[in-house]
Amino acid sequence: MDANRIFPAGHILLRDFLINGHREDGVSPFDRGLAYGDGVFRTLPVCGGTPHCWQLHYRKLCEDCKSLGIVCPPEEVLAADIDMLVGEGEDATIKIIITRGEGARGYAVPALSQPMRLVIRTPAQSYASGNASDGVKLHLCELRLSHQPRLAGVKHLNRLENVLARMEWVDPQITDGLLLDVAGNVIECTMSNVYIRTGNNLATPDLGRCGVAGVTRARILELAPHFGYRPQITDLSLEQLLDADEVLICNSLYGAWQVRALGEHNWEPGQLASRLRERLMQNDAIPA
Amino acid sequence: MDANRIFPAGHILLRDFLINGHREDGVSPFDRGLAYGDGVFRTLPVCGGTPHCWQLHYRKLCEDCKSLGIVCPPEEVLAADIDMLVGEGEDATIKIIITRGEGARGYAVPALSQPMRLVIRTPAQSYASGNASDGVKLHLCELRLSHQPRLAGVKHLNRLENVLARMEWVDPQITDGLLLDVAGNVIECTMSNVYIRTGNNLATPDLGRCGVAGVTRARILELAPHFGYRPQITDLSLEQLLDADEVLICNSLYGAWQVRALGEHNWEPGQLASRLRERLMQNDAIPA
Repeated sequence: MDANRIFPAGHILLRDFLINGHREDGVSPFDRGLAYGDGVFRTLPVCGGTPHCWQLHYRKLCEDCKSLGIVCPPEEVLAADIDMLVGEGEDATIKIIITRGEGARGYAVPALSQPMRLVIRTPAQSYASGNASDGVKLHLCELRLSHQPRLAGVKHLNRLENVLARMEWVDPQITDGLLLDVAGNVIECTMSNVYIRTGNNLATPDLGRCGVAGVTRARILELAPHFGYRPQITDLSLEQLLDADEVLICNSLYGAWQVRALGEHNWEPGQLASRLRERLMQNDAIPA
Repeated sequence: MDANRIFPAGHILLRDFLINGHREDGVSPFDRGLAYGDGVFRTLPVCGGTPHCWQLHYRKLCEDCKSLGIVCPPEEVLAADIDMLVGEGEDATIKIIITRGEGARGYAVPALSQPMRLVIRTPAQSYASGNASDGVKLHLCELRLSHQPRLAGVKHLNRLENVLARMEWVDPQITDGLLLDVAGNVIECTMSNVYIRTGNNLATPDLGRCGVAGVTRARILELAPHFGYRPQITDLSLEQLLDADEVLICNSLYGAWQVRALGEHNWEPGQLASRLRERLMQNDAIPA
């Protein structure tokens, strides 16, 4: 493989990766991650050389692997990969892909599959500063998420619904797309989870039938009482979302942003997103 | 990449591949086929050096690419790849994967994406001879296929439902697993399409909400009248399947097999599968 194809001139330090801990030239063409999306992934920021909320991300990675019957690599192995890619004190974005590894043709899982781990380093993500200060605008996606309880909540590699949904808008003023499921429930955005605040209730959609249950969504559930809010996981209609006092979106890279507009609908400025974001920047571990 | 990892000793001629027409070491770790399953695939037999029903497969590949907004490589480019991998007069199995190519992090489709083509050669598939002579036994899968009309019919790379379904049985006497959808309709098997014969009616499930519409399914639809059957695409219940005179499964590698058992239910031997199989071995082109 021509290294320049992977590393455009001048970008060598910006985009780097390890395959099973090594600087291989590429992923095996027989990998089941490519063939079937048979794997899971995580994206997280590294701040000053330290992976943010690493324990929470690793736990979620293990849970997601388990849901597919894939053996997750040990925590220290992945941490060492990240260390090798991100120098002391550096900021970066890390993406981890774990697949079931190579297989013969056909869906049957090999008896002795060897999971493949791919760790990718890209630059620290930067966003328009207005997203944090003024809030964001969402597109209401036409694509409806299908119900598959066996895969719901898992951040697996079958993401064509997200790809198709993201193709629905090109306007750079729109930050993310709100996704409903086939039954019309609010579920998530293409790259974010969703919260609505109504009075003292802070509700996020039930992800038992579809959607990705992100680490930041879980952190906000735990943090809510400390901010004086009653956290709730429930079915949410679009009407409930439009009637909410505040709507937030969240993920591991940007923390939380207030939603100011969905199509023609607008919300007044609020303080919750910025208060949460400040708290989310702290490096939480799993409670002992 | 260690070539021995891909080509175990003595298997160099059995398993070979080309990436964008070249013998690269591996697939880019930034390929969206790996990241999101953002691509499609085909599997077809090559008999005596000739790809079987190539025009039909290429047409389906183009249709599937189009459904994702991917530009399918020209027919002659893929045909040349197959020629390079399979020598004159040889038998083999060819798998073609077309992805959207490399992308930056995030679901947004790159403005100038360059599709990636991967053509894999494996040995000609061999099956237990009893499958053709005596028929096959199916497992009734517990996993239910979700409804996603935007992806229905397309042989895309998001195949975790098939992977999970295939994990439900290990009994080598079971050839494939019958899949119902969330509404309880019969849809397909993990690697096959399904037909039921009731009198002179030959019915196959409507794949407008889920399932993969294979080339062999399409060929049988066209062939049915020549065998004196009325072809029909319709919703099929499990009861209709159990009550059918004959049940067939089909795909491009084995043609058609009669289903003799589904769990405890058995069907009498029939002639339709073998008659169809004989006809399917002919090398059909797209009618002028």
